[in-house]
Amino acid sequence: MKKKDNKLKLTKLSELGEFEVINRITKNFSNKNNSTITGIGDDAAILKYSDKNVVVSSDILVEGIHFNLTYMPLKHLGYKSVVANISDIYSMNAICSQITVNIAVSNRFKLESIEELYFGINAACKKYGVDLVGGDTASSNKGLIISITAIGAQDSNSIVKRSGAKLNDLIVVSGDIGSAYMGLQVLERENEVFKVNPQNQPDLSQYAYIIQRQLKPEARKDVINYFEDINLIPTSMIDISDGLSSEIIHICSNSEVGCDIYEDKIPVSEELMSSCEEFKLNSTTIALSGGEDYELLFTIDQKDYEKVKKSLDLTVIGHITDLKKGMNLITKANQKIPITSQGWKSF
Amino acid sequence: MKKKDNKLKLTKLSELGEFEVINRITKNFSNKNNSTITGIGDDAAILKYSDKNVVVSSDILVEGIHFNLTYMPLKHLGYKSVVANISDIYSMNAICSQITVNIAVSNRFKLESIEELYFGINAACKKYGVDLVGGDTASSNKGLIISITAIGAQDSNSIVKRSGAKLNDLIVVSGDIGSAYMGLQVLERENEVFKVNPQNQPDLSQYAYIIQRQLKPEARKDVINYFEDINLIPTSMIDISDGLSSEIIHICSNSEVGCDIYEDKIPVSEELMSSCEEFKLNSTTIALSGGEDYELLFTIDQKDYEKVKKSLDLTVIGHITDLKKGMNLITKANQKIPITSQGWKSF
Repeated sequence: MKKKDNKLKLTKLSELGEFEVINRITKNFSNKNNSTITGIGDDAAILKYSDKNVVVSSDILVEGIHFNLTYMPLKHLGYKSVVANISDIYSMNAICSQITVNIAVSNRFKLESIEELYFGINAACKKYGVDLVGGDTASSNKGLIISITAIGAQDSNSIVKRSGAKLNDLIVVSGDIGSAYMGLQVLERENEVFKVNPQNQPDLSQYAYIIQRQLKPEARKDVINYFEDINLIPTSMIDISDGLSSEIIHICSNSEVGCDIYEDKIPVSEELMSSCEEFKLNSTTIALSGGEDYELLFTIDQKDYEKVKKSLDLTVIGHITDLKKGMNLITKANQKIPITSQGWKSF
Repeated sequence: MKKKDNKLKLTKLSELGEFEVINRITKNFSNKNNSTITGIGDDAAILKYSDKNVVVSSDILVEGIHFNLTYMPLKHLGYKSVVANISDIYSMNAICSQITVNIAVSNRFKLESIEELYFGINAACKKYGVDLVGGDTASSNKGLIISITAIGAQDSNSIVKRSGAKLNDLIVVSGDIGSAYMGLQVLERENEVFKVNPQNQPDLSQYAYIIQRQLKPEARKDVINYFEDINLIPTSMIDISDGLSSEIIHICSNSEVGCDIYEDKIPVSEELMSSCEEFKLNSTTIALSGGEDYELLFTIDQKDYEKVKKSLDLTVIGHITDLKKGMNLITKANQKIPITSQGWKSF
């Protein structure tokens, strides 16, 4: 009942106007980086990176296409939107320092919902040491659209691109992969059940890990920091947002090399294994094709193997081969099958 | 009839997939700036500004809210979207060097439409010497959404903010204002006529100037270059995207000063005057409240008056007063009336 009472007090965005909405949602943000000279409040933010190169990445997320608010709380959505974007900066071996956030919202959203969204955005900014330095809020005809630009910096000779993988380099992945996608499968199944029987209170505790990977993923800033600590610069790197297959194809085609990936080396969680069993899905397929893990996929020179070996969180899953040998998965049964992109399509 | 035949050959975006769509629309873009180290093709663009400060601004445009494709050709929309964003960089007295463009499109858009949009984006990039260095394409549930981030650079002591206006500074505006808004009024009227009688072929030649101001506005990079030539740094500056009232209020409140603006000094075009007469509107009201002119509004120290006077395109419209005197319009009848924001609301 309390929730219903609160509803009466929700604030229409049209009552406030754009400037007041911006004031309300940005009042809890504060700048943390020396590179931020001036943040929100002028026509543009002013930033200063001195000798470093600047790294910029930009993404757009659309309700009903990239996220479903029936099971994605706005707070998590805000957090995840930031994570997805800054992950692209880390995948250049750079540190993210600023973001701009543009949103378009339909009139079904009230101020309180937008505040929830920005609460999540702020939580991610705090966790990753990122400043919100600008953005725009507008109305939409339908749903919520979030467009984020992430900006970071790094010394020019430490920036890592997709194109630097060399013959015999080792292929390494951080954390485990596939869980975010399985988390989505569980949430979508429960959503269907809920539609039929809204009284149903599901016990999702056994899926806690994979659901968390879907709803509150983390970007691997810690891995980038670790690289600096151990004095390692990968030869190539990408973040796993669209699935391992798709990402290794990017690295190989940009670097003009082939690869062998060993199925039995691909790191997957126990929770992924058990839910794949339940859903009658192949966990390797999920790891290869499922996206949104935001782990890092990178290649290193063999001489750096000892440095990587020390970390329990980094797994060597294969090596770079000659371009002519193609991109292959070596299965547990020791069969060699070509890796193809599982056709993630945005449209 | 030819048009109908062509329609048979239009390409669905879903036939191509995201990567191929990106390839098609970016193949005609080339990088022009030394500050662009790597553009499209990795997780992030790599930029280098050395000693300069970096200036970043971001905007989102939504179909049906910010533009109407019934009378806004996609080519013009692409051009205008870039102009609107880079104008924010010029208003910091900086030069824009890069943009990222994110779009979300519903399945009613075919590849050929998206190519039209990017043709316009490319035309603006070429005209203003800007590199497209990144972005994202996604589907939307309804209509077209464009989110652009513009990036530029300037020496730290040449950057101009909203907050630097001082007592007795002169208030100056570039070009003429209000015409873009009147152009929109004409287009909307003709659109209503068209709905009733689609056979009607309107003669819009007498409105050519104001329609052009609406459909193909320009950003005042030339004014920023002129400042450098005459060695002038304004004390404060903003671009006129939401109308003169709203912008002078921003300058005065950020600078903690008041102002007197003289109605008879406000530069308006003859075409604005005549169409205001026809529409029975007051041209001063339109100049104060109409947006999207992308002219520059700035303040200068009185000692710089001689420098500004030489340009026929720059008009002194008033001066900065003490905060306590408030913001006022001195009418042609010599009455002093307070300037209020005409309540442009995004929601």
